[in-house]
Amino acid sequence: MSIVRAKSYHHIRTQTEGRVAVVVMNRPERRNALSEEHMEELIDFLRSVGRSKEVAVVLLKGEGPAFCAGHDLSEMVDRDASFYRRLFDVCTELMETIQSIPQPVIAQVHGMATAAGCQLVATCDLAVASEEARFATPGVKIGLFCSTPMVALSRAVGRKKAMEMLLTGEPISAREALEVGLINRVVPADRLEEETRELAAKIAAASSFTVGIGKQAFYRQLEMPQPQAYAYAKEVMSLNATAMDAQEGMCAFLQKRPPRWRHQ
Amino acid sequence: MSIVRAKSYHHIRTQTEGRVAVVVMNRPERRNALSEEHMEELIDFLRSVGRSKEVAVVLLKGEGPAFCAGHDLSEMVDRDASFYRRLFDVCTELMETIQSIPQPVIAQVHGMATAAGCQLVATCDLAVASEEARFATPGVKIGLFCSTPMVALSRAVGRKKAMEMLLTGEPISAREALEVGLINRVVPADRLEEETRELAAKIAAASSFTVGIGKQAFYRQLEMPQPQAYAYAKEVMSLNATAMDAQEGMCAFLQKRPPRWRHQ
Amino acid sequence: MSIVRAKSYHHIRTQTEGRVAVVVMNRPERRNALSEEHMEELIDFLRSVGRSKEVAVVLLKGEGPAFCAGHDLSEMVDRDASFYRRLFDVCTELMETIQSIPQPVIAQVHGMATAAGCQLVATCDLAVASEEARFATPGVKIGLFCSTPMVALSRAVGRKKAMEMLLTGEPISAREALEVGLINRVVPADRLEEETRELAAKIAAASSFTVGIGKQAFYRQLEMPQPQAYAYAKEVMSLNATAMDAQEGMCAFLQKRPPRWRHQ
Repeated sequence: MSIVRAKSYHHIRTQTEGRVAVVVMNRPERRNALSEEHMEELIDFLRSVGRSKEVAVVLLKGEGPAFCAGHDLSEMVDRDASFYRRLFDVCTELMETIQSIPQPVIAQVHGMATAAGCQLVATCDLAVASEEARFATPGVKIGLFCSTPMVALSRAVGRKKAMEMLLTGEPISAREALEVGLINRVVPADRLEEETRELAAKIAAASSFTVGIGKQAFYRQLEMPQPQAYAYAKEVMSLNATAMDAQEGMCAFLQKRPPRWRHQ
Repeated sequence: MSIVRAKSYHHIRTQTEGRVAVVVMNRPERRNALSEEHMEELIDFLRSVGRSKEVAVVLLKGEGPAFCAGHDLSEMVDRDASFYRRLFDVCTELMETIQSIPQPVIAQVHGMATAAGCQLVATCDLAVASEEARFATPGVKIGLFCSTPMVALSRAVGRKKAMEMLLTGEPISAREALEVGLINRVVPADRLEEETRELAAKIAAASSFTVGIGKQAFYRQLEMPQPQAYAYAKEVMSLNATAMDAQEGMCAFLQKRPPRWRHQ
Repeated sequence: MSIVRAKSYHHIRTQTEGRVAVVVMNRPERRNALSEEHMEELIDFLRSVGRSKEVAVVLLKGEGPAFCAGHDLSEMVDRDASFYRRLFDVCTELMETIQSIPQPVIAQVHGMATAAGCQLVATCDLAVASEEARFATPGVKIGLFCSTPMVALSRAVGRKKAMEMLLTGEPISAREALEVGLINRVVPADRLEEETRELAAKIAAASSFTVGIGKQAFYRQLEMPQPQAYAYAKEVMSLNATAMDAQEGMCAFLQKRPPRWRHQ
């Protein structure tokens, strides 16, 4: 049974397991490079998920040796500005879609994540990585500064570290990515699938209505000065509190029983 | 001798020791839950402190097993939106009061700090925690996302860690809270009181006039783009430099003697 | 051969080695204090560098026991507000010049960096420190809060750590500065010169055209809400992609050969 609209995709594989949707970037021979078509498929799938009431959380994975190598350089030589504008438009749309759908998106990073691939990790709501994963924004080495990945990277990690990654292009280890705040967890390679599933299951156990409210409010309030952020968050939380899932959750807590979500 | 206006409070205990005001959340049987009355008393006391010339620094502590468990769920079931709006209005007023009074407020965290209790820690200017302290924003588990705590949390720690705490509701240890920037120091439980006092004493030894200027400017400039932040900070620092305490401080330094503050 | 305009400076020493410009704060007897004249010379040199096509990266060093002790207190006693305004104007101009020239500026920190000296480290694009370096914003101890250093410090490190440094005035070690994101690397004192040179050489090997685009875009997009940041970065990256160095870099990568930059 496919929960989200079944489509025939060429560059991604998708499946749903219970309330978890899994999308796999499936161009292993290109190190899952983000061609325009590949990104369009990811956007299409994520939008389907975003409209679904059945999916609670999304896992983003990569097939083959790398998580994602960024854009496909073989497509990018000798094009005009309008080609590049469209490519970066689609790429930005992908990043914004990840953050705008109500379901949390977890990057499950087993290998190299470079350029727009590193941007994917920085953009996902959460990221779990294998000890073997590496992260880099190496555009500077090929004369094409990672300017759009920089937007996500410099909002996830501190200035000095972001600048170092962008100016040197050198990869950082999963351990360092954890220390600087780019990812949430580092686990041995053979534990990656299981640990990511456990994290997804924990989020899927919550009220999806509540999670969706929270995720949306998170990114919105971050862009506001603190007084406006509070004005906004107070209203969000007041309306959240009147909703059935909050009333049920508070009652269940006070009665020391598990909650029964309306929106699970 | 009470330096700030003595009031009979029901939910907090207050005292002043030299130039340090101590306020203790004193509802141990409710894990210091932030009922509306409790928050009103905290606001009232902090405002008294803010008007006092004698208090240099404030310590915020909790009585009983927990530091603060956030809002009082037993008060929150089956209310209408206007109740919640007022509750979060008062809570936000408490947080803004902590940051707007001229005296630094130090959270002394000996146990669990959850939801609005975690927000208190994120909001205080500084925080010292016992190794036994824990920090969580668990609202998602009861269907009520910690949206207002999120405003403070996501400004104190990185995005990925804030999102993880908000989406999973799981507690982090004091050690992890230190690593991600939520608190300033972790000490053994039996050293918590002494270490917090030492930090308070260090700040109390400075010119309160200078400290008040600095604290106020800190939060204001953070909300500005860098060029405006510099324009503002330059003016603040120029006027600070003409003041008696700065002239005395510079002279004392050049003469290798301790300064004698006018505003101590 | 001097690549940038040779000038006779009194407070700084400058030299260029290959594509690396080195500027040394050379007032060791004053712990490299930033008098107005000293800052004017640094600004003048950095602007020359900024106009140069030959310089790819700048190293900022200090002569003598300290890296930089901030402003010169002996100049600052008993002045009027207009003196202080001019001093902080020039200081802010120095900080803004460091970030606005196209070449990355690397602080090579061998000793104490205090007040505006710590601000220099926070402001430079990258910073490498010796294990013996220390960092502090101690103005609070002399009654003159480090309000302008705060602008740079609070944008480089988290709120709690910035507030602690500003309110206590206590120094942090190089190791702690690394952990909180104030610097990029800590190395043994006898490796400082070599490690900093290696970092500079790595950046100098890239296309200076590309590096300059990236550095400028970095600070601009950081001031923008994310949607505008993406709109801006997309355009920057699209135009970057059409440039000769990007086309050459992509071709060289696909052909597995080293790139030959037009703008090296």
